[in-house]
Amino acid sequence: METHPFDEAIRLSPAGEHRFAGATHPGYANMVGPFGGVTNALMLEAVLRHPRRLGDPVALTVNFAGPVADGAFEIEASPSRTNRSTQHWWITMRQGDAVVTTGTAVFAERRSAWSTCEPVMPAGLPRPSDMPRASAAGRPAWCARYDMRFADGAVTEFDGREHVDSLTRLWIRDDPPRPLDFASLAAIADNFLPRIFVRRRRLVPVGTVSMTTYFHADAALLDAQADRYVLGTARGLNFRSGYFDQIAEIWSDSGELLATSHQVVYYRE
Amino acid sequence: METHPFDEAIRLSPAGEHRFAGATHPGYANMVGPFGGVTNALMLEAVLRHPRRLGDPVALTVNFAGPVADGAFEIEASPSRTNRSTQHWWITMRQGDAVVTTGTAVFAERRSAWSTCEPVMPAGLPRPSDMPRASAAGRPAWCARYDMRFADGAVTEFDGREHVDSLTRLWIRDDPPRPLDFASLAAIADNFLPRIFVRRRRLVPVGTVSMTTYFHADAALLDAQADRYVLGTARGLNFRSGYFDQIAEIWSDSGELLATSHQVVYYRE
Repeated sequence: METHPFDEAIRLSPAGEHRFAGATHPGYANMVGPFGGVTNALMLEAVLRHPRRLGDPVALTVNFAGPVADGAFEIEASPSRTNRSTQHWWITMRQGDAVVTTGTAVFAERRSAWSTCEPVMPAGLPRPSDMPRASAAGRPAWCARYDMRFADGAVTEFDGREHVDSLTRLWIRDDPPRPLDFASLAAIADNFLPRIFVRRRRLVPVGTVSMTTYFHADAALLDAQADRYVLGTARGLNFRSGYFDQIAEIWSDSGELLATSHQVVYYRE
Repeated sequence: METHPFDEAIRLSPAGEHRFAGATHPGYANMVGPFGGVTNALMLEAVLRHPRRLGDPVALTVNFAGPVADGAFEIEASPSRTNRSTQHWWITMRQGDAVVTTGTAVFAERRSAWSTCEPVMPAGLPRPSDMPRASAAGRPAWCARYDMRFADGAVTEFDGREHVDSLTRLWIRDDPPRPLDFASLAAIADNFLPRIFVRRRRLVPVGTVSMTTYFHADAALLDAQADRYVLGTARGLNFRSGYFDQIAEIWSDSGELLATSHQVVYYRE
């Protein structure tokens, strides 16, 4: 069986205590450098693969400190504090001597508790099988690595016709299909275009500077989701003085909120 | 003129390269240890006071890795990467040899750009002068350090009568009044009770494990706000398997979104 391209893209080799070596993958290239979602996934993967890791991810913050060049990188992940059921991590991605990405993560052993979800899954959307797949023609390579079916907020043309809001709702899964896991969920959490593109319908210089992903799914929920489409929603909040923030939700097709995220993006406009 | 208690609480003394010494303040004590908002502010303050700091805060992630004991602490803040107009930071709070809090921050020099805000400030709320101040009787010390006037989601009794949602909207300012700055905004962003208290109306074991604050205000907006009340809103998202997340917005009284935040909280219930 062939290795899935996502597994190739997040492949890490041990490179000493707390250190892992990897390389960017052409299949997940962005306009410049790699797709940020794969960087997000790689920062998490270094902890997931760490021999001292305790439990599953609860929160992951990734700071895109500088451009990631195509080619090799090293990730250092080290526990900053280990408690009885929670563990905190420092994570750094370097290329040569340059720090290109920094982050922290919180892992925990979960147990059952009173549960409820205040947001409701968007209702009334067509099923993915009844929707056309978005074309990845003319888009960066990574877009073809996802099967995306937009209910709202697809940007098909950068025609400068300003849009009233920045809401996107889409069904998405890996292409080829791949069972959902924490790493692919971390990548999918960053699949949404920068909201300034959705609002302004113009390609302007942008770059995420910091993103936090909150994991609500445990391994059982991920297993239940398998390789079916998840529903993603994203919207922008405040666009001001060169930075805006956007929030996202990733829902299972059975209506469970798998992850939420919040990121702040640099823009020039 | 007396020093404001908040300024006493966030006072840091240089203690070597990248290091600052401080101590918890009894006026901002929580049920156990210090109010997390002051810890959030202190982590930011270490960067704000750092001689190599560039620009103003854009994002601050603080991980509450272990309990902060009453008493002395040291904060280390060091730049992880400095670019032309952005700068990334590592931040660590220690007590003795123990890491108690970790974090990262992104600072930037802002400049004018196309701007819009998608969320709208809640309308139709009474003005703070027409609302009663919430009592801090029986509450942890820090609650008396804020003048809070609740439009929604006040928790006056822990009577176990479950509430339909976890929305809170309140006017808040320091007591005594103090001109808003980045540090006090970071503290106010964490003034909201854990949402499980609002939903369940029961005191259950809780603790924020990670919180990210996104700063939209620049110095001019903060100066314009001065010491008047800001409007805070908070609501919970997914409560599941011992962790829930909650989001918050802090608005100026003139309708500018000053900050947003997202945090994940441990709970046992």
